[in-house]
Amino acid sequence: MKNKISIIKIGGNIIDNEKVLNAFLVDFSKIKHAKILIHGGGKIANQLNENLGIKTIMNKGRRITSTENLDTATMVYAGLINKKIVSKLQGRNCNSIGLSGSDANCMLATKRPTSPINFGWVGDIKKINSPIINLLLKENITPIFCAISHDGKGQLLNTNADTVASEIAIAMSKFYETELIYCFEKKGVLQNVNDDDSIIQNINSEKYSELKEKKIINEGMLPKMENCFHALNNQVSKVVIGSPKVINNNETCTIITL
Amino acid sequence: MKNKISIIKIGGNIIDNEKVLNAFLVDFSKIKHAKILIHGGGKIANQLNENLGIKTIMNKGRRITSTENLDTATMVYAGLINKKIVSKLQGRNCNSIGLSGSDANCMLATKRPTSPINFGWVGDIKKINSPIINLLLKENITPIFCAISHDGKGQLLNTNADTVASEIAIAMSKFYETELIYCFEKKGVLQNVNDDDSIIQNINSEKYSELKEKKIINEGMLPKMENCFHALNNQVSKVVIGSPKVINNNETCTIITL
Repeated sequence: MKNKISIIKIGGNIIDNEKVLNAFLVDFSKIKHAKILIHGGGKIANQLNENLGIKTIMNKGRRITSTENLDTATMVYAGLINKKIVSKLQGRNCNSIGLSGSDANCMLATKRPTSPINFGWVGDIKKINSPIINLLLKENITPIFCAISHDGKGQLLNTNADTVASEIAIAMSKFYETELIYCFEKKGVLQNVNDDDSIIQNINSEKYSELKEKKIINEGMLPKMENCFHALNNQVSKVVIGSPKVINNNETCTIITL
Repeated sequence: MKNKISIIKIGGNIIDNEKVLNAFLVDFSKIKHAKILIHGGGKIANQLNENLGIKTIMNKGRRITSTENLDTATMVYAGLINKKIVSKLQGRNCNSIGLSGSDANCMLATKRPTSPINFGWVGDIKKINSPIINLLLKENITPIFCAISHDGKGQLLNTNADTVASEIAIAMSKFYETELIYCFEKKGVLQNVNDDDSIIQNINSEKYSELKEKKIINEGMLPKMENCFHALNNQVSKVVIGSPKVINNNETCTIITL
């Protein structure tokens, strides 16, 4: 039987709230089995861009990653947020290592084609270097990933953190019984967006189609749901969407199944 | 017989000049034996502080690291510079990993006492985690260190990059025949500060005392020299101060001996 691993992704709303982040990291450090954290960016990069007068460039309504945006993303995600999380975990006796995709060639990506929309320095994951990640885990070192990848030719690329989490979960399924947990500011997928307690506790493919059709699952949640099903279709055992509290207790959440 | 390792530190003037940095990284990637790179910060952090209106706070003529300064240092050193170097090396088939001291608990430091001068969030190296660094080297992964350390209790600390280099060199001497190379904008220690060709090719302790007395070695070079002798007094085999070109050919440089 394979050992268990939890791949946990925390979104910007958790990172932006220091109290929530600290409480999450205490819970995370207590997880006894193998674990990997993937973090998004939060408002800090936007704030930095604003303070530096760096404009958010849009193309057909979609945000693009300019060279300046990539630099600030690398500073904030791979630098400030990543190292703060790692040092806090070290303070909780969780030996962790902060990684971008370029580090030890962990996440190789391909720059997204410039047509139909030129997203700038945005990459789509091509390969996760699971042997090196597993080597670290075997040494009892917990990888903490930001969503900056690289193309293997010297270029860093901005990557979607939800996708990074699902791709890492899929890659680790070779070695582990893998659980993928998306933590965000709600307790799960909501039936009614205005009612935080209207959590849909189980979503399978059929239910998902129905929720999509009824527009209960809206635009922001759609790519996350696609990542969930992509993971389940590729050997990931369990996928959960919930609040940061979901990792260490039986808090109500949304469980996704095929 | 122990295998050879080169511990190479590059200063801000190399980092600030993209052409010089790229040429250095090409040479660095060609080194066949084990190697570790330590990089300083350069002007980018100062520039970022300036652009953000973050003041440089001085205490008795010495620069201190405020919370804001530490954040920008973490962004620039551990984020932007470190990841750019790593991705460039990956593009040169040098599998590298960017590390701060908090990552895998590589560099544990102690916050410098606040008396007689309060330097703020500045740390002095207490312990280098040489087994994990050696594990990476054995996997043919080259560690790239920025000079951000941590106190093991959740706090990042700004550390002197020259000292980081000498402490890593000392720690690796357990496993390797260690060479420590300080690369900067000059070809070595100069007899005459206004003549770039007046390189002093050999400095031993006696010569150093003489150069100090004659004030030929000035204030900025003194702590670097102390780091050199500290390394030589602690099992490091060879210490060199020179230009970035020194790493791959027989360019004239300063060799320090006891």
